[in-house]
Amino acid sequence: MSQADARPIGVFDSGIGGLTVLKELALQFPQESFIYLGDTARLPYGAKSASTIRKYCEQNIEFLQSLDVKAIVIACNTASAQMFEHEFEGLPVYNVIEPGAKRALSVSENQRIGVLGTRATINSQAYTKQIKLLSPAAQVFDQACPLFVPLAEEGWDADPITNLIVYRYLNPLLQNQIDTLILGCTHYPILKNSISRVTGKSVELVDSGEAIAQWLNQDFLAGRVNPRVSDRPRKILIMTSDYSAHFTDLAVRILKPIVADEFRVVEVQVQKVH
Amino acid sequence: MSQADARPIGVFDSGIGGLTVLKELALQFPQESFIYLGDTARLPYGAKSASTIRKYCEQNIEFLQSLDVKAIVIACNTASAQMFEHEFEGLPVYNVIEPGAKRALSVSENQRIGVLGTRATINSQAYTKQIKLLSPAAQVFDQACPLFVPLAEEGWDADPITNLIVYRYLNPLLQNQIDTLILGCTHYPILKNSISRVTGKSVELVDSGEAIAQWLNQDFLAGRVNPRVSDRPRKILIMTSDYSAHFTDLAVRILKPIVADEFRVVEVQVQKVH
Repeated sequence: MSQADARPIGVFDSGIGGLTVLKELALQFPQESFIYLGDTARLPYGAKSASTIRKYCEQNIEFLQSLDVKAIVIACNTASAQMFEHEFEGLPVYNVIEPGAKRALSVSENQRIGVLGTRATINSQAYTKQIKLLSPAAQVFDQACPLFVPLAEEGWDADPITNLIVYRYLNPLLQNQIDTLILGCTHYPILKNSISRVTGKSVELVDSGEAIAQWLNQDFLAGRVNPRVSDRPRKILIMTSDYSAHFTDLAVRILKPIVADEFRVVEVQVQKVH
Repeated sequence: MSQADARPIGVFDSGIGGLTVLKELALQFPQESFIYLGDTARLPYGAKSASTIRKYCEQNIEFLQSLDVKAIVIACNTASAQMFEHEFEGLPVYNVIEPGAKRALSVSENQRIGVLGTRATINSQAYTKQIKLLSPAAQVFDQACPLFVPLAEEGWDADPITNLIVYRYLNPLLQNQIDTLILGCTHYPILKNSISRVTGKSVELVDSGEAIAQWLNQDFLAGRVNPRVSDRPRKILIMTSDYSAHFTDLAVRILKPIVADEFRVVEVQVQKVH
């Protein structure tokens, strides 16, 4: 029988997008505690170079490691595209690319898969490479959507302007008869209603939160990560590297019905592991 | 008679927006050399806190100072809103807020002035305070436009979607009968055609590049900054703190007809003044 482990799971992103992943994990694992880090002082990662993104990720992982987490989820596609390691100094590390690619392949019937993401994620070809590795015959059609993040952050998630922009970005993929679409940025589930309105019911949407929760559940069952067992309620702590009232408002809205126990501002780079 | 000074003028922004200012300065002062710094590794500043923006600005100024510039132009409204000093260790420093506010007041007939900007610039109330200081009776109506920067960076500057978004943001200001509109972000001149289509001819647009060029010209005439006098052509050097092919493409397009002599990637934080 596996042992219990009361330590929290660390989750990080450059900003608020990863909260869609945190929400899904918090819903699926109601016993687990979480520490979320939003590296808002350096957001967004989407337009930055591979080496800069990699450097920021390592700093975020070291920061969470110093807070004694039992596993780390990179809840950011841009960052996941640069961090393929499954562990960091003995700590299990989960990126969103592999679970998303695997889930897309399992639900697609015609093996024609669309991928949406930031410019950096699409340029990295991370999903395409992963899908081709798992299933060489699959065809991938991708599209960078730089306007989706600000639309999600404006709160225009049920808006005719958003529908028009979604249509503009998705039309070429639909022309290519995809039957599955990876929302390759953790902000995009916020726009899920607009996206599914444009794709219709014949296209299955794959979101990172659901895919990673399924993956993590397998690792709980396999004993790679041990569950928290306690009568006391779990804690959800949200840290950001920069203060923003707008972030807090959005976070509360995105996480609903999950409620965070605490919000805190931290300095990611200064913190050292002792 | 004033002395000659062959040193370049330093111009910085968090990204490409400041290139609209560089272009205007390069056109107005064809003898002057320029060093442009785009702090692309840490862009955008627009959603960050005042203290973080201030820290980044000081690092950028020290970096340009180490390259022996004769003056510094903060070609970023978000940054200008946090840096009101007119000099830094003896070096003249120009922000875009004062010139923009002054120009708006000089062209407005009804003293009802609109201000567009990033969330950080609007939250800082920098233009409103400056305008009220110069003319307490003036009325200011402001609007944060978080989608304008990604629209400009997508290159959707002549697009029906952009027109719709411009209309959404500007309508409340037009209802307030403004006759002058400050484009309070250096990206926004890229969208000038869409903006002027929505405002019509009865609203005067004030852009940071034109305002700062006028201001700098006065300081040349007053001898606060001395001109470069040479038979050899001036140099325009563009530095960024992160590499991006997309940045270079956009830069070439924004600067046209001005052509940069060199693009270079630099590390802003490591560089020290000796």
